[in-house]
Amino acid sequence: MNNRAGASEHKVRTMQTAPSIESANYQPPTWEAILAAHARIAPRIHHTPVLSSASLNAMTGAQLFFKCENLQKTGSFKIRGASNAILSLTEQEAAQGIVTQSSGNHGAAVACAAAWRRVPAWVVMPKNAPAVKAKIIEGYGGKIVFCEPTVTARKATCVRIQAETGAHLVHPYDDDRVIAGQATAAKELLEEEGDFDAVFAPVSGGGLLSGTCLGAKGIRTDVRVFGCEPGRADDAYRSLTSGTLQSLESSDTIADGLRASLAPRTFEILRRHVERILLVSEEEIISAARLVWERMKIIIEPSSAVAIAPLLKPGGVASLNLPKRADGGAPKLGVIFSGGNVDLSSLLWK
Amino acid sequence: MNNRAGASEHKVRTMQTAPSIESANYQPPTWEAILAAHARIAPRIHHTPVLSSASLNAMTGAQLFFKCENLQKTGSFKIRGASNAILSLTEQEAAQGIVTQSSGNHGAAVACAAAWRRVPAWVVMPKNAPAVKAKIIEGYGGKIVFCEPTVTARKATCVRIQAETGAHLVHPYDDDRVIAGQATAAKELLEEEGDFDAVFAPVSGGGLLSGTCLGAKGIRTDVRVFGCEPGRADDAYRSLTSGTLQSLESSDTIADGLRASLAPRTFEILRRHVERILLVSEEEIISAARLVWERMKIIIEPSSAVAIAPLLKPGGVASLNLPKRADGGAPKLGVIFSGGNVDLSSLLWK
Repeated sequence: MNNRAGASEHKVRTMQTAPSIESANYQPPTWEAILAAHARIAPRIHHTPVLSSASLNAMTGAQLFFKCENLQKTGSFKIRGASNAILSLTEQEAAQGIVTQSSGNHGAAVACAAAWRRVPAWVVMPKNAPAVKAKIIEGYGGKIVFCEPTVTARKATCVRIQAETGAHLVHPYDDDRVIAGQATAAKELLEEEGDFDAVFAPVSGGGLLSGTCLGAKGIRTDVRVFGCEPGRADDAYRSLTSGTLQSLESSDTIADGLRASLAPRTFEILRRHVERILLVSEEEIISAARLVWERMKIIIEPSSAVAIAPLLKPGGVASLNLPKRADGGAPKLGVIFSGGNVDLSSLLWK
Repeated sequence: MNNRAGASEHKVRTMQTAPSIESANYQPPTWEAILAAHARIAPRIHHTPVLSSASLNAMTGAQLFFKCENLQKTGSFKIRGASNAILSLTEQEAAQGIVTQSSGNHGAAVACAAAWRRVPAWVVMPKNAPAVKAKIIEGYGGKIVFCEPTVTARKATCVRIQAETGAHLVHPYDDDRVIAGQATAAKELLEEEGDFDAVFAPVSGGGLLSGTCLGAKGIRTDVRVFGCEPGRADDAYRSLTSGTLQSLESSDTIADGLRASLAPRTFEILRRHVERILLVSEEEIISAARLVWERMKIIIEPSSAVAIAPLLKPGGVASLNLPKRADGGAPKLGVIFSGGNVDLSSLLWK
C-alpha cells in the first residue's frame, strides 16, 4: 500500500490481471493454488453447513447433500473468490482499491472483502439495477458507479475507473484467483461427505461451476460434475454442445444470478471437466425454490434452485445414467446452493 | 414397565407416565438421563448447525451463536423429546401406539418418531386448527382426532383414545423423557461453542427451556439461562415472578408455538435454574423474525424469533447485567431457534 510511482503504472498492472488466454495451452488453477486460496480465506469466511433432507431424498430417490453457500458471508459463494483475489494482492496492488462490474452478489462480495483489506471498492452497475442491490453493496462500504445497461458500457466504465483511480480489477469469473476461491466450496463439501457419485452447481459466467470441477475432482478424481442452467439463459449449454464459446445478449430468467455468459477461462475448464449441462424451465426453478424453503427451512435464491431442479423432474436422477454404487445404495449427490439473496420486502407478513 | 397382561393395564400404566409431582421433592432428569437420551436419538436426528452473523453481532454488541433447530427433522426441536420418549419404550409399551395432544410441532414429531418405531400415532387437535397442520401430521403418518377447542376436551379426548387403543401418552412437555430429549439441543450447542455467558430459549409449556437449563448447566455450571416469552402469553413470567404456577386461558400471539402454559415439572425446573423471563411485543417478534430471514437466510417461525427479540431491543444486551468476560470480549450468547414451520403458501412468488 506504500511506495508507488503513479496511477498509470497501476493501470497497466491491474489491467493485466485477466489476460486473454489461448485455449489449448490454458493452465487452470492448480490444486496447490486452491489449497493456498483456502488457507487464505478460511479465517474470514464461514465454513458453511452441509444439510440433508429425508423428504427430498424420498422425492428424488437419491442421497442428497446440500452445501449451503446461501448461509455464507454476504449471502453467497462469491465472497470465496473475491476475498481470495483481494487478500492475495500485495500492499501496492491493493493500495488504490478494487474495481469490478456486478449488479449483484459479486459486487457485495468485493465490497466486503475490500473493507476487510481496508481499501475502497468501486462497483460498476447498470443504472436500471434494483435499488435494493445498490443499497446492499453500499452497506458493505462499496461505492456504486452507474452506467448504461450494456456490456460495452460496463466494460468501458470499469476501464475509466481503473484509469482514474488506479484500482485493481477483480473480474467476477474470468480470473484464476476467483476460480480458485470458488473451488473451496466443493472442496469443503467433498472433504466433509466423501464418496459422491456426482456434484451439481448452477452455471452463469462459470466461476462457481469451473471451481466446482477443480475442487471436487481434486478430492475425488472420478466424481461427475453437472452444470445446471435456466433454459432461458442457455449459453453454457450451447457452448458445450457446439464446442465454441457462445454468449447471451440478455436474459430475463428469474434466476437473476445466472444471466451472464461463460468467459474463455471458464469455458475451457468446463469443456474439459463437466459431464453435461442440464436445462430447467422457469416453472421448475420456482417450484424447486419453494420446495426447499418449505422442506429445508432455508432461503435460497432462484439461482440456487436451478442446481436441484433437474433432480426433481420425473426420472431426473435416473436420466443421469450414473454407474451403480459399489455399496448398492442410492446415488450420492452433492448440490451447491450458491446464494440466498432474495428481496423479501414484498413477501413477508403483509 | 415390561411384562404386562392386557390393554387395561396399559391404560393404567400409560396414564401414569406423567404423574403429578411434589414440587420440593421433584428430581428433574439427571445428566445421565440426558446422556442416555442423546445416545438414543443421535442416530435419528440432525446434529443441527450453529450459525453466526456478523451483522447481528454488530447490531447487538454481542457474540451470538444460533442453534438452528429450525433445520431439525420435522422442522423443530420437538423431535428430540418425542423421539427420546418413544424410542425408550419397551416393545410392549410401544405396541399399541402413541397418543398425544398438539396442534403443531409436537404432533408432527410424535407422528414421525412413531413411524420410526413402526407403531401408530394418534394426535388430538382442536377442530379449528389450521388444515395445513393436520396435513403435515398426516404426512408423517399420524392419525388426527379432532376435538372441541378447549383444554378440557383435549384432555378428555386423549383419555378416551388411551382407553380405546391402549396407546401410550407422550405429553408435549410435562414428561421427564421429553425434557431430557429437549436438553440435547443446548448440550450440543455448548459442546460445540463452549464458554457462553448466557443462553436464550423461548418458553411456552417450558419443555425446551427446562431442557435448555439442564443441558447448558450440565456442561457449564455458571452459564445463565434466560427464557423469552411473548407479552401476550406471559404465564411463565407471571409464574416465576409470583412464585406460583400460573396458566393462560388462551392467547392470540403470532408466536403460535408459545400459547401453552407451564406444567408442574417445567415450572419446578425453571424456578430453580432460570435467571429471568424476558417479555417481547408482537411487533418485536415480527421484526426479529424478518431480520433473521433477511440477514441469515434461514426460515424461523415467530416462536423462534421470540428468543432473539429481547437482544435486539435498544440496550437489550446491556440490560441483562452480565458479568464482564475474563477475555474482555463482547458477551457470548447462545440463542436456540426452536423451529421453522411457517405456512409459506400465501407468501411466495405470487
